[in-house]
Amino acid sequence: MRVDGRLSNELRPVTIEKGYLKHPEGSVLITVGDTKVICTASVDDRVPPFMRGQGKGWITAEYSMLPRATEQRNMREATKGKVSGRTMEIQRLIGRALRSVVDLERLGEKTIWIDCDVIQADGGTRTASITGAFVAMTLALQKLMEDKKISSLPITDFLAATSVGIVKEIGEVLDLNYVEDSAAQVDMNVVMTGKGRFVELQGTGEEATFSREQLNGMLALAEEGILKLMEKQKSVLGEVAESIGSEG
Amino acid sequence: MRVDGRLSNELRPVTIEKGYLKHPEGSVLITVGDTKVICTASVDDRVPPFMRGQGKGWITAEYSMLPRATEQRNMREATKGKVSGRTMEIQRLIGRALRSVVDLERLGEKTIWIDCDVIQADGGTRTASITGAFVAMTLALQKLMEDKKISSLPITDFLAATSVGIVKEIGEVLDLNYVEDSAAQVDMNVVMTGKGRFVELQGTGEEATFSREQLNGMLALAEEGILKLMEKQKSVLGEVAESIGSEG
Amino acid sequence: MRVDGRLSNELRPVTIEKGYLKHPEGSVLITVGDTKVICTASVDDRVPPFMRGQGKGWITAEYSMLPRATEQRNMREATKGKVSGRTMEIQRLIGRALRSVVDLERLGEKTIWIDCDVIQADGGTRTASITGAFVAMTLALQKLMEDKKISSLPITDFLAATSVGIVKEIGEVLDLNYVEDSAAQVDMNVVMTGKGRFVELQGTGEEATFSREQLNGMLALAEEGILKLMEKQKSVLGEVAESIGSEG
Amino acid sequence: MRVDGRLSNELRPVTIEKGYLKHPEGSVLITVGDTKVICTASVDDRVPPFMRGQGKGWITAEYSMLPRATEQRNMREATKGKVSGRTMEIQRLIGRALRSVVDLERLGEKTIWIDCDVIQADGGTRTASITGAFVAMTLALQKLMEDKKISSLPITDFLAATSVGIVKEIGEVLDLNYVEDSAAQVDMNVVMTGKGRFVELQGTGEEATFSREQLNGMLALAEEGILKLMEKQKSVLGEVAESIGSEG
Amino acid sequence: MRVDGRLSNELRPVTIEKGYLKHPEGSVLITVGDTKVICTASVDDRVPPFMRGQGKGWITAEYSMLPRATEQRNMREATKGKVSGRTMEIQRLIGRALRSVVDLERLGEKTIWIDCDVIQADGGTRTASITGAFVAMTLALQKLMEDKKISSLPITDFLAATSVGIVKEIGEVLDLNYVEDSAAQVDMNVVMTGKGRFVELQGTGEEATFSREQLNGMLALAEEGILKLMEKQKSVLGEVAESIGSEG
Amino acid sequence: MRVDGRLSNELRPVTIEKGYLKHPEGSVLITVGDTKVICTASVDDRVPPFMRGQGKGWITAEYSMLPRATEQRNMREATKGKVSGRTMEIQRLIGRALRSVVDLERLGEKTIWIDCDVIQADGGTRTASITGAFVAMTLALQKLMEDKKISSLPITDFLAATSVGIVKEIGEVLDLNYVEDSAAQVDMNVVMTGKGRFVELQGTGEEATFSREQLNGMLALAEEGILKLMEKQKSVLGEVAESIGSEG
Repeated sequence: MRVDGRLSNELRPVTIEKGYLKHPEGSVLITVGDTKVICTASVDDRVPPFMRGQGKGWITAEYSMLPRATEQRNMREATKGKVSGRTMEIQRLIGRALRSVVDLERLGEKTIWIDCDVIQADGGTRTASITGAFVAMTLALQKLMEDKKISSLPITDFLAATSVGIVKEIGEVLDLNYVEDSAAQVDMNVVMTGKGRFVELQGTGEEATFSREQLNGMLALAEEGILKLMEKQKSVLGEVAESIGSEG
Repeated sequence: MRVDGRLSNELRPVTIEKGYLKHPEGSVLITVGDTKVICTASVDDRVPPFMRGQGKGWITAEYSMLPRATEQRNMREATKGKVSGRTMEIQRLIGRALRSVVDLERLGEKTIWIDCDVIQADGGTRTASITGAFVAMTLALQKLMEDKKISSLPITDFLAATSVGIVKEIGEVLDLNYVEDSAAQVDMNVVMTGKGRFVELQGTGEEATFSREQLNGMLALAEEGILKLMEKQKSVLGEVAESIGSEG
Repeated sequence: MRVDGRLSNELRPVTIEKGYLKHPEGSVLITVGDTKVICTASVDDRVPPFMRGQGKGWITAEYSMLPRATEQRNMREATKGKVSGRTMEIQRLIGRALRSVVDLERLGEKTIWIDCDVIQADGGTRTASITGAFVAMTLALQKLMEDKKISSLPITDFLAATSVGIVKEIGEVLDLNYVEDSAAQVDMNVVMTGKGRFVELQGTGEEATFSREQLNGMLALAEEGILKLMEKQKSVLGEVAESIGSEG
Repeated sequence: MRVDGRLSNELRPVTIEKGYLKHPEGSVLITVGDTKVICTASVDDRVPPFMRGQGKGWITAEYSMLPRATEQRNMREATKGKVSGRTMEIQRLIGRALRSVVDLERLGEKTIWIDCDVIQADGGTRTASITGAFVAMTLALQKLMEDKKISSLPITDFLAATSVGIVKEIGEVLDLNYVEDSAAQVDMNVVMTGKGRFVELQGTGEEATFSREQLNGMLALAEEGILKLMEKQKSVLGEVAESIGSEG
Repeated sequence: MRVDGRLSNELRPVTIEKGYLKHPEGSVLITVGDTKVICTASVDDRVPPFMRGQGKGWITAEYSMLPRATEQRNMREATKGKVSGRTMEIQRLIGRALRSVVDLERLGEKTIWIDCDVIQADGGTRTASITGAFVAMTLALQKLMEDKKISSLPITDFLAATSVGIVKEIGEVLDLNYVEDSAAQVDMNVVMTGKGRFVELQGTGEEATFSREQLNGMLALAEEGILKLMEKQKSVLGEVAESIGSEG
Repeated sequence: MRVDGRLSNELRPVTIEKGYLKHPEGSVLITVGDTKVICTASVDDRVPPFMRGQGKGWITAEYSMLPRATEQRNMREATKGKVSGRTMEIQRLIGRALRSVVDLERLGEKTIWIDCDVIQADGGTRTASITGAFVAMTLALQKLMEDKKISSLPITDFLAATSVGIVKEIGEVLDLNYVEDSAAQVDMNVVMTGKGRFVELQGTGEEATFSREQLNGMLALAEEGILKLMEKQKSVLGEVAESIGSEG
């Protein structure tokens, strides 16, 4: 029996609020249980130096938590003067994941900046960030189309993420909250596309290990959860969802 | 005629949502027009080294903006590796202002950490932060009382803040939004107590100056606006508002 | 009775030594009682990136204290690897204040770098810096005129600054020294022009507040003191003082 | 046909030179093809603050590359003043992996510092670091036993790592060199124990994705390669290898 | 013929003004030609961690230049956020030099902080700093004696420094000013004691080299100049100079 | 009798392994006793900004130690976020020394980056770095000649370095190892050319001083040792050694 009464293959309640902020080209507030993340997508008409002159775009992400998103107050990274290793790992993960479903050539020499700011944390902040950021990015690209800055939606597939893990005396479970995550022997983040292909797989046993069978069990749960997250994304996006995956 | 149709002495619509986040001891979301700030108050059972052993508490504040709180995306201070001069000025201002209405001896050796995170900016973010932080701090102190960690509410008076300024062809105005603020010749932030005393007065003419008469005009507007903000604070706080200013 | 026997409206002895260093285009050593500040003005033929191509100049300031300017040795900011919030506030204040009396278009695309280095501190270092920096800047601009790099002196008015405050059992006083400043309930820095207009007003009650009447009392003292500081500036500057405020 | 003529399931030549440096408690030079990494293990009799008083030990890792380990010279992170996100990810990975096969309670309140310094890079530096660091750590723990500082070897299983990936026109391959890695559509790092259990699985499609079948193919290759790496570890370690996994 | 008409073995005019600042335990303004350095000595009743519990004192130095000490304005190291290699070299040199003539055991567990702040630079700032800092340190130690905090003056010998070099078409010269220093093929800083022993010798050929004969010529000039600097130190110090070198 | 049985004028065994790494244009592993340094020379087709447009090249050096090069593990400078004063001194010394024997005009607008990474330290790391870096640089310049990027070898003379010092009860000794260096009263680093001219002389008495006679004794030992180091350099370099010092 899970700590909040869910079944092993049950996601927490998910909501995605579109257009949450007035300035960004795309923005959402995603809530997954008590985890709440503001995801924004900003369009910059330049690409970073290493990408210039290739006719291709770029997508990059930053991630942060409010100091009091957590049970105990965390010191701000700006105050410390440096970004932690954990934050950098997550930022790189979000950026890589989104780039895997965007046709950077159709985007053209533009950068999409993704910002994921966790205002309340209860486990799964990085996967909620990816799921929400996909929607914010789609909204920003939709706006670029409406503004005639790109001629087709350069998104090749849906993208969402969840966590799975192994909890003592329960086994494999889907979408761990903070209490479960702290006690889990194995924690795996899975990012998948709408066609059921893997984009990222990050399984970690902290002072523990896992077998091939356990891996298979976790992957099955992840696939099931991600499909449900994509239904939520589709219903929020509305009509533009139909252009995802079309060749333009 | 002001850009958004307001009268010279008219505040923007203000809302204060109490208990906005689940983890902090006190938290609000304050909106002043399109400016939105999450203010939290966290209690730490220690004081900073320079305060130890005096039997007194301390209140300190941090302030930040989400990168896309603004029209153009701003680089994160954590990414830059340092906090800007503007941020430091605002953090010091918020902390000083709140300390002026708290009896630090009655608080005892505790630190109240105030965090003001601007999620959407449209002018007046520092004064909205002070007005919201006062409510979040009061909620946290109320919780300390309920938990029997302090015996009386150590708040000596109400505290709120607004901006006033001089706009070309209009004159003195109350509560400038971003468009007005950018065009203003003079910008003044005023922090006042419930008894109508000044806590902070920061008037600045950027490439401009102001006379004694203009100063008087601005101070009158500020006083009028701050009284209205305090009415809002009172209605949000409810019963605990009555303990403010009592000797305990 | 004040700690050093002065009247409430009495400045400390002030001297301004012109041409104190050989390299800078303008330099002074200003002493206000035991506070001593080296102020220099350096001319750079470029403007910062955000000002380029506008045909206008810029004035920026840096402020620092020698480690042993104070009673206790302070760690160098270079050693700490970062500039404190207090230093940034003061630097921004000095720059803003000087820009308010310079016609940046007549200056043309040049930057005036102001450096204020406190070699001995006894209260009022930021206001002494402004008063001294105004003279150093005027000397540098005079040199630009003599070198035919500008055709008229682009200074629109005199500028000086002092502090006022409220000291327990004495009331409002002018030009606080360190001992008074440490004990003051309210501290206000006032920057004014020769025409008696305000440029900056920064009044702060640290764990205290002040009334409208007290504000008026302090402003009257400040105006009186600033007029005397300007007489000193005029006598030091000599003939070039007459060109200040002329349209060129 | 692979770029260096290897079969899909063929590792590059591997050597592990034991006792490479004179000062560290354990050290090796591991070479995997042209990749060369100095791995050292240092014993510190304290644990980090967050571990104190629990009677348990800690293992932490740092990773770096010489500036000219690579084809193009890389700027030193010490010169830049900060450690990159990539470096932090790798450091965290190495530390977590090693901790999964050490009984931290039997280690007692000690820290093992692992340093992996890449002196020549040709792909697979992080997995070579793990494979070499396991040997260096075992040597250091063996020394602790010989010095009677621990009573049994607190290592619960063997540990080694390799990379697998998907290369266009070839498919799944084992142990990618730099040229293959740069061209790979999918790159996966696998860390396994001697019992064939997973410790870490990090699969990443950069601008690409992978199916369940491809995942299975890669995992099979990884398992095969890791078994061969462990044979090498055993032959290098000699007699102490027999104590690995014993309960002490 | 030297650029300023001096003979090869001629020092620039030297003055040392004692008690230049009111707060430090010891302070001087030393001028050597147009080079001007404020040297202060501050007493701290603790020693750095690596010295604790040994019953010995420590002497450490910091060095800085005002931004406009030089012909061109230099960016502040505090603004850059780090201290340059040149500054660190000089700081270490000054500290080492002073420690060589102090009996750290007689000093006891105290730190003398030396601060050398160059307010005007015209060559030879590091050697002027050492010569001036010796006087400031002696004054601070004299004060410690007067305050009965040490029982004898723990200074074992005089200490002064100068630069020598090789200038094209002139040969070896003493006490180079900035113009000479910029053109010199070889630059050597020499620190000596009153008994004529070397403390530091730092000879550098920038894109040039020097022979044994040239070295001998430079050392003879340095010795001659340093003796004259010590006469100046003695006359400034007055009576306390007689206690230097006495066993206490 | 020296701690390792050597005569006063005896170097430790020296080996220089050419072509130690595959990527750099020039590389060696130099061992001097138990001191081991990887020296690489990298060619960059640009010069730093302050050298541009002069038709001359530049040589710059970086130096670092692996954390466990020493008896006790040292914290990485990348982790600390800044380079120590000691490292900066050494980097500047290596760069200056190499520049003194290179004709920067014949090199043309290129930068040679020298990297000296100490993998094992037992005293004399900076002088071993210079001696090894000279060989690595010569190899890189030889490669530039072979690639027809320069028409002659722009090296004007040989260059090597060693340390000498004064050890209690023994007197002047050549090539101090770590144990000797820690106990030495005086430590001097000497860099010389093949023609017997000095490039750098850095003699330091830490809490001690030295006489002219002792200086002469140390210089004689240094000269003797450096000649032997150059014989080793010649035999390693082979034929290209004959082009050193030719006018091209």
